[in-house]
Amino acid sequence: MIIDCHGHYTTAPAELEAWRKRQIAAIDDPSKAPRRDELVIGDDAIRASLEGAQLKMQRERGTDLTIFSPRASFMAHHIGNEATSRTWAEVCNDLVHRVCQLYPDNFIGVCQLPQSPGVPPSNCVPELERCVRELGFVGCNLNPDPSGGHWREPPLTDRWWYPLYEKMVELEVPAMVHVSTSCNPCFHATGAHYINADTTAFMQFLTSDLFKDFPTLKFIIPHGGGAVPYHWGRYRGLAQDMKRPPLTEHLLNNVYFDTCVYHYPGIELLTKVIPVDNILFASEMVGAVRGIDPDTGHHYDDTRRYIDQLKALSEPDRHKIFEGNARRVFPRLGQRTAREVNGASASG
Amino acid sequence: MIIDCHGHYTTAPAELEAWRKRQIAAIDDPSKAPRRDELVIGDDAIRASLEGAQLKMQRERGTDLTIFSPRASFMAHHIGNEATSRTWAEVCNDLVHRVCQLYPDNFIGVCQLPQSPGVPPSNCVPELERCVRELGFVGCNLNPDPSGGHWREPPLTDRWWYPLYEKMVELEVPAMVHVSTSCNPCFHATGAHYINADTTAFMQFLTSDLFKDFPTLKFIIPHGGGAVPYHWGRYRGLAQDMKRPPLTEHLLNNVYFDTCVYHYPGIELLTKVIPVDNILFASEMVGAVRGIDPDTGHHYDDTRRYIDQLKALSEPDRHKIFEGNARRVFPRLGQRTAREVNGASASG
Repeated sequence: MIIDCHGHYTTAPAELEAWRKRQIAAIDDPSKAPRRDELVIGDDAIRASLEGAQLKMQRERGTDLTIFSPRASFMAHHIGNEATSRTWAEVCNDLVHRVCQLYPDNFIGVCQLPQSPGVPPSNCVPELERCVRELGFVGCNLNPDPSGGHWREPPLTDRWWYPLYEKMVELEVPAMVHVSTSCNPCFHATGAHYINADTTAFMQFLTSDLFKDFPTLKFIIPHGGGAVPYHWGRYRGLAQDMKRPPLTEHLLNNVYFDTCVYHYPGIELLTKVIPVDNILFASEMVGAVRGIDPDTGHHYDDTRRYIDQLKALSEPDRHKIFEGNARRVFPRLGQRTAREVNGASASG
Repeated sequence: MIIDCHGHYTTAPAELEAWRKRQIAAIDDPSKAPRRDELVIGDDAIRASLEGAQLKMQRERGTDLTIFSPRASFMAHHIGNEATSRTWAEVCNDLVHRVCQLYPDNFIGVCQLPQSPGVPPSNCVPELERCVRELGFVGCNLNPDPSGGHWREPPLTDRWWYPLYEKMVELEVPAMVHVSTSCNPCFHATGAHYINADTTAFMQFLTSDLFKDFPTLKFIIPHGGGAVPYHWGRYRGLAQDMKRPPLTEHLLNNVYFDTCVYHYPGIELLTKVIPVDNILFASEMVGAVRGIDPDTGHHYDDTRRYIDQLKALSEPDRHKIFEGNARRVFPRLGQRTAREVNGASASG
């Protein structure tokens, strides 16, 4: 089977955005803020939002299961305060949970965290715990820059983040390092901020001993690892100049890359340079790039096609990228079926 | 011949740093600031700083001419104010000019600009003009983030920058988009900030109509274009979703990439994906990565070897990358010899 480890609920019904707008409008007067239960979306609306989009693409592209999280650009952790982010994360995660309950074979959940600029990330522990223990989620998205393009938080390797990492290790859930929208006019969100954050996080890990402190902590760097595989020689050389161990032993027991690279030569490079055990299939559909490549006649983000074209890849290696690695990096999925993961959560 | 379009004077004699330290120490009391003529470095010290480094590597690697600029990480435009940056740029550019006069066949100059956070870039026009008209320099390094990792300046496509662009067009000099050191603890300088800036600048160009306003303005994006070639499908797709023209016509008459990518697979991807007319040979030696790759036995930054290995590259295309494109993108070099460029400058 094929597991897509990176999908966001970018097609959520319009009621979600309307609720969020009411929440934002009430930031200065919390008494006017909408309650969680004021978001009312029927099952049919959820089905309609997915049937013509993510589910259609799963069927057309022959992928089976999407590890699914709230829309990344809508996390917008910079808006409001901790309470704003908390309620918003709960609302978004609950909606992803409903998706997983409606389509228990097609989706399993990854949660948004209630991060807020300057707020210690220990505040995320309760929501992470709720999502994993009660909703059956198997991971979280961690935003290294809750300011939205101003980068005012300490690096991911700072002890600032350790309480969250302790809980991730305890729960056996990885984090995808994923920023949200950019409020900095220098950075286009999906064209610069996303990719820069991926590169930035990798370099933070490289210069630190984080994984000595957390040998089982796992991160997925999305969008093919930002610039990292393309500059793998640079990173190997920088690590060497800094007297760090080789990257394979220094980072690659803990850091993984997805395949959200939207052309064949990029995927070819990724799989040439990065050990196959560290590559997880993903497409981020429906996501940043929605068009059809006139050169191929297929969607840019139909990343399965690029991997299928890799003649040098053995079948066991292809299986690792498509399925095996995801089952290892998400231990709460492990060898279970998606329905088992989602079913377990239904009973709490 | 082989022209390396990206080299910095990273090995300048220690007197330069000592002068800078005095300048920084005097920021709050300009009366104590060192004068330009208080930097005293003998010709022999300059020769010694290059003979065992850049010149040795030129000889060993069989490259001929380096387009040479002051050390990028030392530009540090965030320090002090406009006057600080002005004097510092003059000192650094004068030193590069002396290098070019001592070795007129081996180096031609590219200048540091006296940028300062929040100061309109028109302030850079006199120093650019001095360097080009009096010192024989053929380009400039433009820092899109003089804050050093906080990204507080408008995007490069904002009219804020236009007075500088008008002068660049008039003088027929390109700019390499090159940040300096990072003061933001999130961003490692050479491992994250440099690469992020490259990606960021490209995306700024993509979303704008800058080159409608300046059809002959030229930028080199260093470090292989940051993440851009690896994500070329993403950028093509983003442009398409935004109803922009294809990247080849939208940007590639004005934007070029260097070959500072420190492993063969990266260079292979670059040359597969980016039209050969837009690729300029460079190594950035002596620069970010100084070690020897144990897998190859050669320096990571010996980028000529990677290009030599490209069997698919025709000889005319190889010549474009090694020499022809640089002569076109730097019109003040054009078909002249380096000695002619440097000789012209000696007479003012």
